[in-house]
Amino acid sequence: MDPTARADAIHRLKSVAGHVNGIIRMLEEDRYCIDVIGQIQAAQTALSRVSEGILDAHLRTCVTTAIQGADAEERERVLGEITEVFRHTNRP
Amino acid sequence: MDPTARADAIHRLKSVAGHVNGIIRMLEEDRYCIDVIGQIQAAQTALSRVSEGILDAHLRTCVTTAIQGADAEERERVLGEITEVFRHTNRP
Amino acid sequence: MDPTARADAIHRLKSVAGHVNGIIRMLEEDRYCIDVIGQIQAAQTALSRVSEGILDAHLRTCVTTAIQGADAEERERVLGEITEVFRHTNRP
Amino acid sequence: MDPTARADAIHRLKSVAGHVNGIIRMLEEDRYCIDVIGQIQAAQTALSRVSEGILDAHLRTCVTTAIQGADAEERERVLGEITEVFRHTNRP
Repeated sequence: MDPTARADAIHRLKSVAGHVNGIIRMLEEDRYCIDVIGQIQAAQTALSRVSEGILDAHLRTCVTTAIQGADAEERERVLGEITEVFRHTNRP
Repeated sequence: MDPTARADAIHRLKSVAGHVNGIIRMLEEDRYCIDVIGQIQAAQTALSRVSEGILDAHLRTCVTTAIQGADAEERERVLGEITEVFRHTNRP
Repeated sequence: MDPTARADAIHRLKSVAGHVNGIIRMLEEDRYCIDVIGQIQAAQTALSRVSEGILDAHLRTCVTTAIQGADAEERERVLGEITEVFRHTNRP
Repeated sequence: MDPTARADAIHRLKSVAGHVNGIIRMLEEDRYCIDVIGQIQAAQTALSRVSEGILDAHLRTCVTTAIQGADAEERERVLGEITEVFRHTNRP
């Protein structure tokens, strides 16, 4: 992966880890359930932003290289992975 | 789009339209709310399957052509669209 | 269900059925894949709005009645259904 | 919240925090993008399981108490929050 995209992803994930630890403290302090759920949803949103950044970098590097390459099977494989990632995120 | 993928998408969407009309009848017959919500979620799942099929066909045709082409701006555009479709589906 | 909530849900579902037929026409006219996917996502969003309205009406009628009632098993049942609806919508 | 549900949520969140740190290491080791995205999606799923458990506990305690209580405004408030949590999770 492109070093800038990777550094950005690591930075965001460190922030998510801190966020999750903050949610654990909310539970230990017996904070209101709905507020805790709100923070869990915010952490999930932050994780979505990370995977979008990684997918974007992946499309511009690995996928582009594979599609411009001569190996038809490899092209098939990388495109199938993109559909699979989309399917997993999409409503089951 | 590839004619087979298009025919498949049209076939599935006709089935979704019939499904939605069935849900309208459930409401007219005052069926149990949770059962109605279950059918709405099933229709949403069916729509996800349609968009996955279309994305898959799009990757194998338009996106592959653009990435193998000489126009850097066009490559950028089609890849940005894929990230955008993923972002829209991903948790907001 | 409350008649106003039901009429609203039916009205929205008729609009979704029309929307889905419009997407079928887009495919028949061979419109751009990404635009078709965008319209499918919009139809899914419209369906989410319908199920939210139905859930809201359900909470204010059936669920409230059950929880104020004397039947512990029935209370358990209606609350379990709410968690189940949430689980189905939540990331799998 | 019920102490058992709270302990379960804290236990699961500690596991998610560990999972996120594992994903950071995957990025530092330059692991394959699609595998990283798969792990991010798994962490999001784990977070969904936590919020479902908290919602379930909340329905059985605070919501049940409020609905059985005499304060109509409070009943309105807790039910509105449930719809809001559902709306946030549902497709935007």
